[in-house]
Amino acid sequence: MPKPPRNRRSNQSPDAGVFDGLAAGLAEAGRAFYSRGWALGTSGNFSAVVEREPLRLAITASGVDKSSLTAGQFLQINHEGKPLGSQGKPSAEALLHISIARARRAGAVLHTHSVWSTLLSQTFAAEGGIELTGYEMLKGLEGVSTHEHREWLPILENSQDMRQLGGWVEAVLNRHPRSHGFLLRGHGLYTWGRDLAEARRHVEILEFLLEVLGRTHTAEARPFGRRRGRPDLEAAKPWPR
Amino acid sequence: MPKPPRNRRSNQSPDAGVFDGLAAGLAEAGRAFYSRGWALGTSGNFSAVVEREPLRLAITASGVDKSSLTAGQFLQINHEGKPLGSQGKPSAEALLHISIARARRAGAVLHTHSVWSTLLSQTFAAEGGIELTGYEMLKGLEGVSTHEHREWLPILENSQDMRQLGGWVEAVLNRHPRSHGFLLRGHGLYTWGRDLAEARRHVEILEFLLEVLGRTHTAEARPFGRRRGRPDLEAAKPWPR
Amino acid sequence: MPKPPRNRRSNQSPDAGVFDGLAAGLAEAGRAFYSRGWALGTSGNFSAVVEREPLRLAITASGVDKSSLTAGQFLQINHEGKPLGSQGKPSAEALLHISIARARRAGAVLHTHSVWSTLLSQTFAAEGGIELTGYEMLKGLEGVSTHEHREWLPILENSQDMRQLGGWVEAVLNRHPRSHGFLLRGHGLYTWGRDLAEARRHVEILEFLLEVLGRTHTAEARPFGRRRGRPDLEAAKPWPR
Amino acid sequence: MPKPPRNRRSNQSPDAGVFDGLAAGLAEAGRAFYSRGWALGTSGNFSAVVEREPLRLAITASGVDKSSLTAGQFLQINHEGKPLGSQGKPSAEALLHISIARARRAGAVLHTHSVWSTLLSQTFAAEGGIELTGYEMLKGLEGVSTHEHREWLPILENSQDMRQLGGWVEAVLNRHPRSHGFLLRGHGLYTWGRDLAEARRHVEILEFLLEVLGRTHTAEARPFGRRRGRPDLEAAKPWPR
Repeated sequence: MPKPPRNRRSNQSPDAGVFDGLAAGLAEAGRAFYSRGWALGTSGNFSAVVEREPLRLAITASGVDKSSLTAGQFLQINHEGKPLGSQGKPSAEALLHISIARARRAGAVLHTHSVWSTLLSQTFAAEGGIELTGYEMLKGLEGVSTHEHREWLPILENSQDMRQLGGWVEAVLNRHPRSHGFLLRGHGLYTWGRDLAEARRHVEILEFLLEVLGRTHTAEARPFGRRRGRPDLEAAKPWPR
Repeated sequence: MPKPPRNRRSNQSPDAGVFDGLAAGLAEAGRAFYSRGWALGTSGNFSAVVEREPLRLAITASGVDKSSLTAGQFLQINHEGKPLGSQGKPSAEALLHISIARARRAGAVLHTHSVWSTLLSQTFAAEGGIELTGYEMLKGLEGVSTHEHREWLPILENSQDMRQLGGWVEAVLNRHPRSHGFLLRGHGLYTWGRDLAEARRHVEILEFLLEVLGRTHTAEARPFGRRRGRPDLEAAKPWPR
Repeated sequence: MPKPPRNRRSNQSPDAGVFDGLAAGLAEAGRAFYSRGWALGTSGNFSAVVEREPLRLAITASGVDKSSLTAGQFLQINHEGKPLGSQGKPSAEALLHISIARARRAGAVLHTHSVWSTLLSQTFAAEGGIELTGYEMLKGLEGVSTHEHREWLPILENSQDMRQLGGWVEAVLNRHPRSHGFLLRGHGLYTWGRDLAEARRHVEILEFLLEVLGRTHTAEARPFGRRRGRPDLEAAKPWPR
Repeated sequence: MPKPPRNRRSNQSPDAGVFDGLAAGLAEAGRAFYSRGWALGTSGNFSAVVEREPLRLAITASGVDKSSLTAGQFLQINHEGKPLGSQGKPSAEALLHISIARARRAGAVLHTHSVWSTLLSQTFAAEGGIELTGYEMLKGLEGVSTHEHREWLPILENSQDMRQLGGWVEAVLNRHPRSHGFLLRGHGLYTWGRDLAEARRHVEILEFLLEVLGRTHTAEARPFGRRRGRPDLEAAKPWPR
């Protein structure tokens, strides 16, 4: 039987062929991220939309080693993050993926843990986010046509309460409708795209730019906090306030 | 003959199938660490428990190049670090592996030499250890459920007297029963786990966090010693005092 | 049919065999650059001369992912950057490749986006370029026979107007006839060579030296601007003035 | 015909089997160094002793790309650096390899160009060398049994006059009979070993320790020159004086 075309608005029941294709693509992306050091130690989780209405996602199972990630380590979840069938436990952050898939109409959501995103999410937490501008690489973000674009990458406080964190994510997505990603403090990057190829491109672009930013500050050898002229870090709380 | 199940409390004689399976897994881990630059120049050694009572370990032979590590380069040693049979010379640090396997009831013990662990083990020596907190990645450590966890990574003075060093290791394991690893000064990281998969995850998590910490201090461009407000480095001797 | 010899001055019509061979070589180079992190997120573009008179280039199609770049993702363009046939859209920077191929009689032109070239193109923008001297690695640049050579790597302001940028590139190539490459600010490196092997060698050499330079300044922990003794950065505008 | 045993003191004519085996091993080492970024842009050259009396070496041909280095790209040279037969041009630094093979009775000599060795060879030039001590990794150097060992890595001024440079190398090898390697300023690392495996281990150990040293200074954010308490850099000329 030939693989059916991907039909994201279908009302039909979830199609195994679509799920399998998405899971295979996500698994390949996850292994590539692992090899770059962006998903060590079972960190990172990845999802793609199988059906839009009602929403169903293919998502990594919880606690999986990404060095050898396979399509068989993905689950299908519904719009509440519940797994379909008795397949195991989805990633703890499934609700964040669902919020993003909805708010941005994303076809794929990718979450990585790199050294530079972790570092900068701490250092810039007091400023509530990171501005990226002046880089040609920004043009690889969907809808951006000039290096003069100003990309705001919000930083959210981290939390182990997934309902709370999901609410914060929805709020930040609403407040910054043009942002292509956000950071969780001490935790890493979330980005997304219309499909997996676009989401993966966004991971590479944002990780690249965060490395450039981190190394620039390192090279200039000044404490980060001072650069923005905010002497009172106590008054500048991390978002959300 | 099918590979027998792993039976860590068996009183039977060492089982070649168990040994071979553990050695193959350790060899694969060692090659992966080498390719990340964590076991260059014959550095690093790796072990796993073949039998718990009496204790027997599979451990790397001394001075082996990790780029092409094979199962055939592992020896079996008893609870005193003596090789069973005439197989060659075990790693000089075999006694440390035995101490850890006992004190933590670990199924696998891994020792890596990364640039960042070497660097930080020198820079933080005067403080006796490194505190890691606020990072989501900490949740990958066994038994940790929040990024607010405070992981203390003790730093021990290095020594070429393995009986002395083994004693220090036992003491530090007793004093810090919740620590998931420790550093030897100028030497590298020891960590462990219930089995090889868990120990390997701990290597990746701790190496990741040490890189984040080292780059954070570098970016902030302040001498490390000052950050903790300890003006008198003479009074703060490396552990053990 | 055996592959015909490459004949760069031929007046014959473009030869499919020559094009295919060049495209395959460029694709291999592109994948290698991607794996080093020099062409992430669809960045980077690569070309080679198929015929000199009238000028025809093999060049990457626009927006292609370099991780899996294939010969089939190259187009043939004429001296105005127009694709021959209905093959799709060439890289937006095709005109720069044409300017370089003409001004330097280059057989191959390579454009990479590394972290260090991006960083340094911003930091040294006010000085109009970067001087590289004292490194043995310089001898790998065509025509250089001593580490005492002074290589000037001009930095051009970035622009989305390709006719404007093409004009600046021609001007900087004329002004610095001995330079082996240049940087676009916030954008990356352009270099070239008589053939693909030479151009690729120039990429590796210049990227290596930029990393050395960036890390040297980082290690010395002084703001870059001060090192050259130019107190008045306002007076030293980025080229072209 | 089975491959004959390696007989380094044989007076027989050069044996093709020995040469081929050494060239294959050197080629594999060269490709591995390239992939770590230690031999980019045709930099680096590698040799091994085919016969001790009269001295004959297998050595890389000049200007070869190390990414795809093969045994066929090695030449055999005599004690004056002259190629045997009409095989092409040996590496320009052949005389240095001969000096080292003689002075240290080395079976293999390896020269790499890493970012960190290049950087530190410039920064520490005024001190004439780099002291490495306190690192367990030092024990991987032949004859070293404790991390308290003090390894002195001399730094020589670079020169394009190979007879002059060869003389300096002989002098520095005599003056520092226990050193396991040296740096050429702005140029990279030379090390050696009884055989290729030992020489390769020395490359990995010294490159590792140079990276640790470079990152330590970077993290501590002080200009290098000040750390050693030498205020008068003019008076401290690079060796040889």
